[in-house]
Amino acid sequence: MQTMGFSRLVLVNPRRFPDPQAEAMAAGAADVLAAVQVVSSLSAALAGTVLAVAMSARRRELAVPALWARDAASEAVAQAASGEVALVFGNETAGLSNEELAQCRRWAMIPVNPEFSSLNVAAAVQIMCYEMRLAVVAPGLPPAISGAGQPASHEDVERLVAHLEEAALGCGFLDPASPKRFVPRMRRLFSRATVEQEEVNILRGLLAALEGKGKFGR
Amino acid sequence: MQTMGFSRLVLVNPRRFPDPQAEAMAAGAADVLAAVQVVSSLSAALAGTVLAVAMSARRRELAVPALWARDAASEAVAQAASGEVALVFGNETAGLSNEELAQCRRWAMIPVNPEFSSLNVAAAVQIMCYEMRLAVVAPGLPPAISGAGQPASHEDVERLVAHLEEAALGCGFLDPASPKRFVPRMRRLFSRATVEQEEVNILRGLLAALEGKGKFGR
Repeated sequence: MQTMGFSRLVLVNPRRFPDPQAEAMAAGAADVLAAVQVVSSLSAALAGTVLAVAMSARRRELAVPALWARDAASEAVAQAASGEVALVFGNETAGLSNEELAQCRRWAMIPVNPEFSSLNVAAAVQIMCYEMRLAVVAPGLPPAISGAGQPASHEDVERLVAHLEEAALGCGFLDPASPKRFVPRMRRLFSRATVEQEEVNILRGLLAALEGKGKFGR
Repeated sequence: MQTMGFSRLVLVNPRRFPDPQAEAMAAGAADVLAAVQVVSSLSAALAGTVLAVAMSARRRELAVPALWARDAASEAVAQAASGEVALVFGNETAGLSNEELAQCRRWAMIPVNPEFSSLNVAAAVQIMCYEMRLAVVAPGLPPAISGAGQPASHEDVERLVAHLEEAALGCGFLDPASPKRFVPRMRRLFSRATVEQEEVNILRGLLAALEGKGKFGR
């Protein structure tokens, strides 16, 4: 949950807490465990919240209608503008009881393979926290690559393509009477690859060397 | 991975396999383990694939541009129409090396809390398989609730609201000279709740009983 930016964990009647095993598995997220609130009932855990979303894969009678996790996350994030919202998970063995589910205003399910639907609670928490994070924080662009260079300009790419054509004709690889689709294919390749300035320089240097002309010696 | 509908797992140089601990943790997904293919290099694992997506949270120099997991899943699913695609995960300790990443045509990242970004490999696999499933299978509507009854018709809801108004006036709760916004508020509540036929019957029976008129005796 901390990887997705959440910090507040409330445990309802944990079998044991604090627990050295939990600390070992927290792998650095000790802050979350240090701030855990332990309560004796689900209603105590939900006190003060404006929306509780129960996560349960089990079909129920007389429940609120189920939502998919992604839609429930959107609604929970929208409601978070009005107050605290809770995601409610049952324990690994039994999940949530009908009584617990009835205390929650929404019921969310994670879409799964119907022939093998047993997602463990850690996996369900991870997916739901991930959906919540994406609903809160539009992720923007992925981080820029530090080694990425300046993209080549249109003219640079055109010069590279022209150089390739010239070299292909010069060495007899291309027959000037029947150039096939060499130029459009090369242009398409380097366009798709979003080639960098430095790469154009390297390729043209290589071409010139292969032509026996020295760097850029055409 | 089986919960998300995936069955093919290839292990590159596993420290030990088969492994009783892996079997214990598979929790019923023994089919996946029974079908594991063990190979000695990543290139052997990728043989025959048309797209390999490397999952890595670490920033790199000179790598292919990073995509977010959701966008990479869409692309992988689209490419799966042309052939087998691979999701490539490193081990828990070291992740993927630069050489391994360089063998993959795409690099995907899971958006995380930048201050605590260490997602374990099981969590990363779960999220990516979930995104792949959503990209393959539009989840449709959540399963219908078996106990859900017939939604009340518009007229039923209107009759309930009229009955509530009559009862509220009859018992003096509402002043006919100043009915406030009782009717619109009740209509809004029962409209939002998508009330069922049976619930209308129960509420009208209760109202009639409170009015001393017997069921539906108005």
